[in-house]
Amino acid sequence: MATQNAVAAGVIGLGSMGLGMAQSMVKRGIRVAGYDINSSAVAKLAEAGGTSASNLAGAAKGADVLLVVVVNAAQTDMVLFGENGAAAAMKRGGVIISSATMAPDDARRLAAKAEALDLLYLDAPISGGAAKAAIGQLTVMASGSAQAFQKARPVLDAIATTVYELGDAAGIGASFKMVNQLLAGVHIAAACEAVTFAKKLGLDLPTVYKVITASAGNSWMFENRVPHILDGDYAPRSAVEIFTKDLGIVSDMGRHEKFPLQIAATALQMFLMTAAAGMERDDDASVARMIAEVTGLELPASSLADT
Amino acid sequence: MATQNAVAAGVIGLGSMGLGMAQSMVKRGIRVAGYDINSSAVAKLAEAGGTSASNLAGAAKGADVLLVVVVNAAQTDMVLFGENGAAAAMKRGGVIISSATMAPDDARRLAAKAEALDLLYLDAPISGGAAKAAIGQLTVMASGSAQAFQKARPVLDAIATTVYELGDAAGIGASFKMVNQLLAGVHIAAACEAVTFAKKLGLDLPTVYKVITASAGNSWMFENRVPHILDGDYAPRSAVEIFTKDLGIVSDMGRHEKFPLQIAATALQMFLMTAAAGMERDDDASVARMIAEVTGLELPASSLADT
Repeated sequence: MATQNAVAAGVIGLGSMGLGMAQSMVKRGIRVAGYDINSSAVAKLAEAGGTSASNLAGAAKGADVLLVVVVNAAQTDMVLFGENGAAAAMKRGGVIISSATMAPDDARRLAAKAEALDLLYLDAPISGGAAKAAIGQLTVMASGSAQAFQKARPVLDAIATTVYELGDAAGIGASFKMVNQLLAGVHIAAACEAVTFAKKLGLDLPTVYKVITASAGNSWMFENRVPHILDGDYAPRSAVEIFTKDLGIVSDMGRHEKFPLQIAATALQMFLMTAAAGMERDDDASVARMIAEVTGLELPASSLADT
Repeated sequence: MATQNAVAAGVIGLGSMGLGMAQSMVKRGIRVAGYDINSSAVAKLAEAGGTSASNLAGAAKGADVLLVVVVNAAQTDMVLFGENGAAAAMKRGGVIISSATMAPDDARRLAAKAEALDLLYLDAPISGGAAKAAIGQLTVMASGSAQAFQKARPVLDAIATTVYELGDAAGIGASFKMVNQLLAGVHIAAACEAVTFAKKLGLDLPTVYKVITASAGNSWMFENRVPHILDGDYAPRSAVEIFTKDLGIVSDMGRHEKFPLQIAATALQMFLMTAAAGMERDDDASVARMIAEVTGLELPASSLADT
């Protein structure tokens, strides 16, 4: 029902996450204008029933809600508040939903800039991946004023099945996301270390997967990523560079807060080694491939490559 | 039905795990004689319907199956093959179920000693904790000959709901257990690092628990141990010294195999710091208390201590 929602929304950033979120909004009857520097992504939004904008201001023009799904805080700052930025084109009193992963201090800084322009700001990092973005089933870890939540509600409902309301100020959502990324990154690195060690010990890896996923050593990431290793399939569902970035933010936060993060620091080095070995854009389970290359182990090869 | 099982079993080591396992065996109608250097534990087995033995040989005398549940490989070796050890008292052709956590090389060495005495040997580390031991619902990660499994079957069925048969030689069960312990130890340390970092960031810890356990950052250990931190309750369900021991074995194995284990090494140091700070016998979630003490954070206090 294309008339259900009177809200006008803009989306900046139509990568695999942003495009899926924009499509979910269109399906809920939200008018969506979108912009990305990649024009083929903009064309896909138009095919899905959205409006293609030719620049940042075009996507934001008259928007009640502007969703920003770019890579990091610097990009978010630039697309919103840089030259010909999107924020100035929005309806006064509108809300920015900022979903890039960033440090809490950056979220607070961006919120202050938005408020100086009479805009609301929701610190709203997301989790769930591209597949869930496309079907409107993300999780949002959000913080901001009650007015910001209220104004953003139709869009939040369209993109997510779970919206955590974590506090009344920007920075809290970002903090939750970074705590989650710390654990996620460590668990991926640990899974890769454990599986390669199991291989070194001569164990049958599918059996290791079966036993560990039923035991106290299990993690969400072990369960999700180890199949990539068993299949020898390192096509990026989530790339190594995501975790060099996110554990890099965690590392920056730790130094800023004067707080030791020993395990996260070790995991970051393992992702950096993997990136340095040329696997930056491959699946993050490539940490196992890096360890295997260093130690001379043979992990399962892709059955696809054999055919 | 006390007559169901003709098998005669002995149990060496009646700590919280061994006593529970012995009780589960009695409930299944297995004749059980038990020995521990702690005479009150032996008395508890007698109360439960078992036979109290006054020494190692007494527990093993005429046994078809001898379950050994002591602290480590050295103790297992001593109680089985030391002066007046249990192995010599067993029925020839009987099976030793060896459940202490140990390095695979130790399991292979002990199996060879057993075989030299015409005994079968099952390398059978366990997981599940004291509560599951008491109700016969452990998980056993076992390897050994088909004859060893066959002979051990009534006891395995009495103590466990899941018995993984992982291979036909000693050492494989131990290897699986060590891979699990590597992950479990890392995940506990990571959970403690993440929760204290969240506290440093000013987050509400019960909310952190709720959000993370529903997110990709979750692990079995995060879910299980973080409530101890939220409750300020460090009574040992599993003590810090278990992981200084088990990650110590992992570390030894890595050096022996010439295999780098960076994350496990970092986690071991965190458990050692916690032990060095005087919390060796407290719950392993005490890693969070150690970090909080170092960094001047205030974690939740025990509500029990307030009353």
